[in-house]
Amino acid sequence: MQSFMNDDFLLKTDTAKHLFHTYAESLPIFDYHCHISPEEIWEDKSFENITQVWLYGDHYKWRIMRAVGIDEKYITGDGSDYDKFLAYAKALSLAIGNPLYHWSHLELKHYFGITETLSEKTAPMIWEKANAVIKTLSARKLIEMSNVALIATTDDPVDDLHFHQMIREQGAMKTKVVPAFRPDKALEPTRADFPAYIEQLSKVSGISIQTIDDVKAALHARIAYFHEKGSRLSDHGLDYIPFAKATDAEVNAVLAKALLGQPLTDLERDQYRTALLIFLAGEYYDFGWVQQWHVAAIRNNNVALFKKLGADVGNDAIMDVHLAKNQAALMNACSERGKLPKTILYSLNPNDNYTLFTIGGCFQGEGIPGKIQLGSAWWFNDHIDGMEQQMRAYANVGVLGEFIGMLTDSRSFLSYFRHEYFRRIFCNLIGQWVEDGLYPNDEEMLKKIVEGVCYYNAVNYFGMEL
Amino acid sequence: MQSFMNDDFLLKTDTAKHLFHTYAESLPIFDYHCHISPEEIWEDKSFENITQVWLYGDHYKWRIMRAVGIDEKYITGDGSDYDKFLAYAKALSLAIGNPLYHWSHLELKHYFGITETLSEKTAPMIWEKANAVIKTLSARKLIEMSNVALIATTDDPVDDLHFHQMIREQGAMKTKVVPAFRPDKALEPTRADFPAYIEQLSKVSGISIQTIDDVKAALHARIAYFHEKGSRLSDHGLDYIPFAKATDAEVNAVLAKALLGQPLTDLERDQYRTALLIFLAGEYYDFGWVQQWHVAAIRNNNVALFKKLGADVGNDAIMDVHLAKNQAALMNACSERGKLPKTILYSLNPNDNYTLFTIGGCFQGEGIPGKIQLGSAWWFNDHIDGMEQQMRAYANVGVLGEFIGMLTDSRSFLSYFRHEYFRRIFCNLIGQWVEDGLYPNDEEMLKKIVEGVCYYNAVNYFGMEL
Amino acid sequence: MQSFMNDDFLLKTDTAKHLFHTYAESLPIFDYHCHISPEEIWEDKSFENITQVWLYGDHYKWRIMRAVGIDEKYITGDGSDYDKFLAYAKALSLAIGNPLYHWSHLELKHYFGITETLSEKTAPMIWEKANAVIKTLSARKLIEMSNVALIATTDDPVDDLHFHQMIREQGAMKTKVVPAFRPDKALEPTRADFPAYIEQLSKVSGISIQTIDDVKAALHARIAYFHEKGSRLSDHGLDYIPFAKATDAEVNAVLAKALLGQPLTDLERDQYRTALLIFLAGEYYDFGWVQQWHVAAIRNNNVALFKKLGADVGNDAIMDVHLAKNQAALMNACSERGKLPKTILYSLNPNDNYTLFTIGGCFQGEGIPGKIQLGSAWWFNDHIDGMEQQMRAYANVGVLGEFIGMLTDSRSFLSYFRHEYFRRIFCNLIGQWVEDGLYPNDEEMLKKIVEGVCYYNAVNYFGMEL
Repeated sequence: MQSFMNDDFLLKTDTAKHLFHTYAESLPIFDYHCHISPEEIWEDKSFENITQVWLYGDHYKWRIMRAVGIDEKYITGDGSDYDKFLAYAKALSLAIGNPLYHWSHLELKHYFGITETLSEKTAPMIWEKANAVIKTLSARKLIEMSNVALIATTDDPVDDLHFHQMIREQGAMKTKVVPAFRPDKALEPTRADFPAYIEQLSKVSGISIQTIDDVKAALHARIAYFHEKGSRLSDHGLDYIPFAKATDAEVNAVLAKALLGQPLTDLERDQYRTALLIFLAGEYYDFGWVQQWHVAAIRNNNVALFKKLGADVGNDAIMDVHLAKNQAALMNACSERGKLPKTILYSLNPNDNYTLFTIGGCFQGEGIPGKIQLGSAWWFNDHIDGMEQQMRAYANVGVLGEFIGMLTDSRSFLSYFRHEYFRRIFCNLIGQWVEDGLYPNDEEMLKKIVEGVCYYNAVNYFGMEL
Repeated sequence: MQSFMNDDFLLKTDTAKHLFHTYAESLPIFDYHCHISPEEIWEDKSFENITQVWLYGDHYKWRIMRAVGIDEKYITGDGSDYDKFLAYAKALSLAIGNPLYHWSHLELKHYFGITETLSEKTAPMIWEKANAVIKTLSARKLIEMSNVALIATTDDPVDDLHFHQMIREQGAMKTKVVPAFRPDKALEPTRADFPAYIEQLSKVSGISIQTIDDVKAALHARIAYFHEKGSRLSDHGLDYIPFAKATDAEVNAVLAKALLGQPLTDLERDQYRTALLIFLAGEYYDFGWVQQWHVAAIRNNNVALFKKLGADVGNDAIMDVHLAKNQAALMNACSERGKLPKTILYSLNPNDNYTLFTIGGCFQGEGIPGKIQLGSAWWFNDHIDGMEQQMRAYANVGVLGEFIGMLTDSRSFLSYFRHEYFRRIFCNLIGQWVEDGLYPNDEEMLKKIVEGVCYYNAVNYFGMEL
Repeated sequence: MQSFMNDDFLLKTDTAKHLFHTYAESLPIFDYHCHISPEEIWEDKSFENITQVWLYGDHYKWRIMRAVGIDEKYITGDGSDYDKFLAYAKALSLAIGNPLYHWSHLELKHYFGITETLSEKTAPMIWEKANAVIKTLSARKLIEMSNVALIATTDDPVDDLHFHQMIREQGAMKTKVVPAFRPDKALEPTRADFPAYIEQLSKVSGISIQTIDDVKAALHARIAYFHEKGSRLSDHGLDYIPFAKATDAEVNAVLAKALLGQPLTDLERDQYRTALLIFLAGEYYDFGWVQQWHVAAIRNNNVALFKKLGADVGNDAIMDVHLAKNQAALMNACSERGKLPKTILYSLNPNDNYTLFTIGGCFQGEGIPGKIQLGSAWWFNDHIDGMEQQMRAYANVGVLGEFIGMLTDSRSFLSYFRHEYFRRIFCNLIGQWVEDGLYPNDEEMLKKIVEGVCYYNAVNYFGMEL
């Protein structure tokens, strides 16, 4: 029996252990997609107790607390921080097999030096221990402890990025902090706040917006601004992949309705989104950026919970929707203009891995290694099974050695150990292949592959100076 | 090499063996969903030979007999019981990897004391041995041998439940036998027998049925009746999850057409079903019941076979249909009324596990541990792979320690060993995690989890006195 | 650690090794579905260098070359054969876990006697070695080396099959070479070349074609012709499974429009296809043939690539589409006429395995062992995971001992070692089951199952004399 989460956690073979400890473990982290707040980095946020850094705002943890029947008071309500911590400890001990079990203990170990197992019994002791340590920690300290080379935050086109600017000008951080462009609000003409958002976009870009060409011009201006501030990538959150070609006149008509707050048909919504997605892909291509498509989430399902707590509170889930036809059509529409940028494809539904990536595979090439990527296992999939399935899908129908690897996708400063989790799973997988005689025990190639997937491929892919 | 189906069958590690033999093996069975006949329990049905108890009515077995090309005469036809037994033995020996291979041998071993492997060669000998034993067996004897604490049968709202009543009044059984409410016929307005069924419902409830409110009142009356007879749960078999909101007037119009035997559109059918599903969820909530949604079966596919043999003859299959949107909408419609009861979600399509359960996860909470359950692997999925995948899905995006575990879903008195099959797979899975250092070797917690999933969670969840 | 791809490659247990080496390894190959050219067999095609036999025309390899960013010049362009070989070696060494890694090395070993690992470094040496051997090889020699009992090519109904005829008359090959009937062009009324194709069909059949009955008569004539030339099977490539019943008059109207090159609606297209698929199934049934349905590919996605290189260039992918309803309806429509032939079902989307095969399972029987088959893992799925998943699905809901096993589906004379790959994976899977006590260590039954799945089941299923 291997002891619980020891140094060889997740590493079953000698080759796996060797690859992880020799090559993967000490590499820096290139976190090209996360949701942490540049303001909190700037102000070097500190925490009074472990609940604040661990449970405030972490809807992954909230879900498992709800699943064991804990009262919302001790999740997002006015329960004390101590009681919330106890409640989480109780929930966690039943969550056998859940990635939170591992993440929580990785975090306790690496940031707090705590190697005891968290349970109802140990919770009071761990509360004390952790809180003694937390006074020495802060946002920047946690980042530094995690050996993070780069952080790409997720930012709205209307953001002025002044925290990024201030961080950069201050020059005190070894970690590079860059923005990423996420224009979801500009691409969602059915949202109630769409007209207001477009007005904001108009204001920050200095472009009066009546037509789709105006929207494009405004977004172009913001991309240029983001580019100047160091951004080299964008991100799109899409319920599904839309594809509905329309004339400029038709799209203008849709926009006009949307700006008046009138309801749109699904077709109209898709016409508008299709036009912009093709345009934006072209912009990203011209600026040498990478685009990300995150698809197949279904959000805010429990309306009562949404009304009470708002978005991003553990109220989202995995959508089931056909992607292939529209994905092929949209990628092709970009490609036919000669302007399909590097693209990372993610679906929240693990059933989509093979479809997404084999269609993506039709657009590989043009001298760019790994141009089209199957993004690493995302959100509800970033457990051992999900990560391994994503890696296997990548290997089975693509070239795994070109994979750009992991990202945290997190709002927490403690999530960097998800990279360690990923690296262990990756080294275990390919180590097993080598042990089984499925790949030669070629030290040089294995080093290249491990270091590539865990770090260098991403560095090269994004082409950002570090 | 482990010998064939020995005491450590399916248990690969020492921890797995320990957990199964120490905690799981001897627990009673809480069989909260099955299709056995209360009449057969009442009359304490006996059998002349093994074919009668094994092959009569077991369409799982019929399918593998057809798959090896056995003539229907020896499956459901007028072949002799002996010839049918030989035919099954022949088919089974080719069904390597099929759960029937294991179930059949578990049943031979535990009920008949036969440890030989069934094959064409051994069939004549086993026929003799089994038939010598069968004279000592009967429905109640088999239930007793299986240590069954509770049986929840599946019953139509119009059923008067007199066999349940008689069993209860007699008081001779240690096993509690309760009905479960399955109003499928009331929810299927397109069936040819719908008007006749509604008339029956009207008669047993004493409520004249013209409007949807009348249907609701009649179902309410029957739920109250079932409740009085000990029922605490319902079950719905749905091809897909419908969701189409409509006014009462619209639903009344649909009902009026249906009662006249007029054809309905898909939308009309869904309007009617949606209205009733929301209503019934509220009733279940008020009565403190659990509801089950069994979705994504496609039935009676081979029409010639259906015409010849009727329903439930091995002529059903796995449907592929999108669930997420309607599931979220329907659960939310119940939740917004404040009346979403405890719910167990099952899809016959294993691709749906993550979607079903992550949407369900948005409705967890309200102080109820494991309020929303991902039901254990069902029907075509209750093989080793399917069960393990269901458990992994449960663990990966939920709290496995709250899972209420297995049920037989069977028409046979021999199927209780599916619980053993499940328990072995479960103990093997978590035992492996412990051995791999993925969960602490914490005896107390492991005991709690194993005993919970194998028995106590279900007892607590249904809240029935035993 | 097992050395790289040694004799026990993919075989983890002693039982697996025993089953493979004793029973599977030396069996002949019954390759009932491939795309090799009868002309190339007839002319006994030879090759100047390994690039010509390995990389010309192998779009699997092209995809991984594009995925590492190799310029199209060195894939399908005018790069030298040597440079192309180097480029492939470079791509391959990064493709850890990809089946091409294994196939390429199996081919180097068995046909060229090369046991070194291919990489950028070894490529020049292997180029020399392989080219020294290639002069001794040819199409027929490669087939002979592979111990191939039968090759069924894939042929258009309008083909006169004269190469098949000449090969047969010459009588020099030990391998039987038969045609298979693939009438895709006759079933695709929306193709631009449909009218021209129908004219061709009319010419070769001698039947003037105006109505659907004429199409049927012409296809009947061609089936009879193929039958005379030894064909006993057909193949259909379908984006999805259509089902739309229509009157003859309606189908005639669709045909008339199609023959005029007018656009068709999706419904019209499906009405036409449904009518012909039902008709053809009946023909196959009458002639005692096997039919194959290959569904769920999405083709020629990158239009720029298609315009440059045409079809079958690595520009296809996995479709996501619901199959169940139409599959059930179409199989039933054939069955109700009493004319559902033996059928092999393949979906390119691995998510469909269980749906496809459980629906198929409703049509098993009629005295035919394994009448409805779940086809072996196809194209993007013929990696270790995909093959094992297909086998597990087969076992879990069917009778694996009746499976007819592998085919190459290839355009290359080197692909026969995919059968070895399959056999190793199969023996490993069932060997593991035996070692784990999930199936008895019954030598006689295991021999029967292994030899059946690897060879004899297919021989018996197709009923062709060898």
